[in-house]
Amino acid sequence: MSEPLKYAVFGAGSWATAIVKMLCENLDEIGWYMRSVYTKEHLLKAQHNPNYLSSVEFHLEQLKLSNDINEIADYADVLIFVIPSAFIYGELEKLNIDISNKTIVSAVKGIIPETGLLLGQHFNQHYNIPFENLAVIAGPCHSEEVALERLSYLTISCSDAERAQAIADSLSSDYIKTKISDDIIGVEYAVMLKNIYAIAAGIAHGLGYGDNFQSVLMSNAIREMKRFIKKMHKMKRNINNSAYLGDLLVTGYSLFSRNRMFGNMIGKGYTVKSAQMEMSMVAEGYYATKSAHLLNQKNKKKTQLPIINAVYEILYENKNPKKVFKRLTEQLD
Amino acid sequence: MSEPLKYAVFGAGSWATAIVKMLCENLDEIGWYMRSVYTKEHLLKAQHNPNYLSSVEFHLEQLKLSNDINEIADYADVLIFVIPSAFIYGELEKLNIDISNKTIVSAVKGIIPETGLLLGQHFNQHYNIPFENLAVIAGPCHSEEVALERLSYLTISCSDAERAQAIADSLSSDYIKTKISDDIIGVEYAVMLKNIYAIAAGIAHGLGYGDNFQSVLMSNAIREMKRFIKKMHKMKRNINNSAYLGDLLVTGYSLFSRNRMFGNMIGKGYTVKSAQMEMSMVAEGYYATKSAHLLNQKNKKKTQLPIINAVYEILYENKNPKKVFKRLTEQLD
Repeated sequence: MSEPLKYAVFGAGSWATAIVKMLCENLDEIGWYMRSVYTKEHLLKAQHNPNYLSSVEFHLEQLKLSNDINEIADYADVLIFVIPSAFIYGELEKLNIDISNKTIVSAVKGIIPETGLLLGQHFNQHYNIPFENLAVIAGPCHSEEVALERLSYLTISCSDAERAQAIADSLSSDYIKTKISDDIIGVEYAVMLKNIYAIAAGIAHGLGYGDNFQSVLMSNAIREMKRFIKKMHKMKRNINNSAYLGDLLVTGYSLFSRNRMFGNMIGKGYTVKSAQMEMSMVAEGYYATKSAHLLNQKNKKKTQLPIINAVYEILYENKNPKKVFKRLTEQLD
Repeated sequence: MSEPLKYAVFGAGSWATAIVKMLCENLDEIGWYMRSVYTKEHLLKAQHNPNYLSSVEFHLEQLKLSNDINEIADYADVLIFVIPSAFIYGELEKLNIDISNKTIVSAVKGIIPETGLLLGQHFNQHYNIPFENLAVIAGPCHSEEVALERLSYLTISCSDAERAQAIADSLSSDYIKTKISDDIIGVEYAVMLKNIYAIAAGIAHGLGYGDNFQSVLMSNAIREMKRFIKKMHKMKRNINNSAYLGDLLVTGYSLFSRNRMFGNMIGKGYTVKSAQMEMSMVAEGYYATKSAHLLNQKNKKKTQLPIINAVYEILYENKNPKKVFKRLTEQLD
């Protein structure tokens, strides 16, 4: 019998912490890399992450904790990256061991700003990881509900179905149901785009638009997402599956989504800078908006992206949210 | 120049009151039939509906009020029916004038229990109204937000595009945007089905399922709705348009939806009877559940409707909501 695969999680935010918790339901030991020495010390002392999902208690004998990314990368066969897209490039620069035979799983919600690539594409191009070794974990899944062990569904995408299933099995439990998919690129874009639409939902709410408009916005958002993804990677997919529509809804409708909260502050009149300073967490959608905009700029024939364009103009061109959304309402149906 | 068409609304619930308000933005006079003598007297005295959207003040010179359905049916060219599906059959029995040359607009959210027909089909078969004279008004639109003049979008469906546009124009205003569609049957079924899914969302919430599950439920609901409608009337339609997905979302995610509220009580352990007694408004989805179930029973090859089936078992077969939903979670993805 072959040795069971070793898993490791890179990152110590709320989503990383939730994924470690899921893995703890199934595995004897999980590698866990975190940048912060304080977080590691606190985990060793108090058995929980001091900053995120602190109600979740870990058994230390299940965790192999380290502040050395190479130690954990070397330890594991399956490397799950859960670092905010804005910081991942800097973290990956520290990697100096050969990881070309490892499985790389992205739970990063966005593309790498420095390269304009999805995490999988980045590993494929810069670390020679073959395409079939790349996977993506997608929700719809608020980490807070994982902490509460509320039933949640995940989609694991990988072109190699067996590998996808193995990862899915390592995450499944009483409260986590999983399905697998082969649309690794589409799912990863969906994860990124939903945060932009959550910002849009927040801006609309902040400006005083109601539930009727919100539902029109989401109905247009899923159609826009479909167009965007189709342009980037054409294949047969049902955009109404949980990994796309479900994830959009849980983020767009949640009052706890940091992206929606960020948008809400913008809609209420905060400047981008002051809204960012008020929030201690990174609103991934902020970076995603720029990335999505740039990707579409590269298209010879531009995809119609009225919502993304509106958010871009507000966040990056300092345009008046009220006026931009007034115009957006004319473009939706 | 031909005489402008005369419009009338039949019903005095919140949606009917909202539609009268929309028409008042554009028309000099609107016929308004209501069963209740008290409601009519109150409107004449206080200029608002005593029971629904009472903050909306009407100008009496714009309203032709009557408790006589035939008087109003005779007066108008365009008859907009906004009576709960459970009561419409009894109301229509009072009609004894020839209406075969009128335009019939359904804003009824369900099918007529006595005949198993959509309102349009009923008028087509029993009143010889030609198909092109039939139209449907669909949201997503909470009437409460119309009262507040918050931006809302309507879809007007009719096989005759010019007629659809004329009705759309009579409803459009600063806060109401309209689009037209030719999928009269599909839109009317969507309006009915969304209320069943709102009940399901309420039951899930009442049972303690969280936002992650709710988004999976909605993502499965729109796929189930697509299957149902396709079986009933196959044509090219984008199920993610506002009249289908948008309307599902505004109902399924609203804490004010009476259908969701009804489901929530069921999930929390109320019996169907006690939940109905607690609520003073009719939960349309209760009747819609039975209608949808019966329609699918008639199909030789049954459509897969796990959510509708679950709600049916709970509401009509007295099955335990917790157990039924536990099984439902295995059927969703």
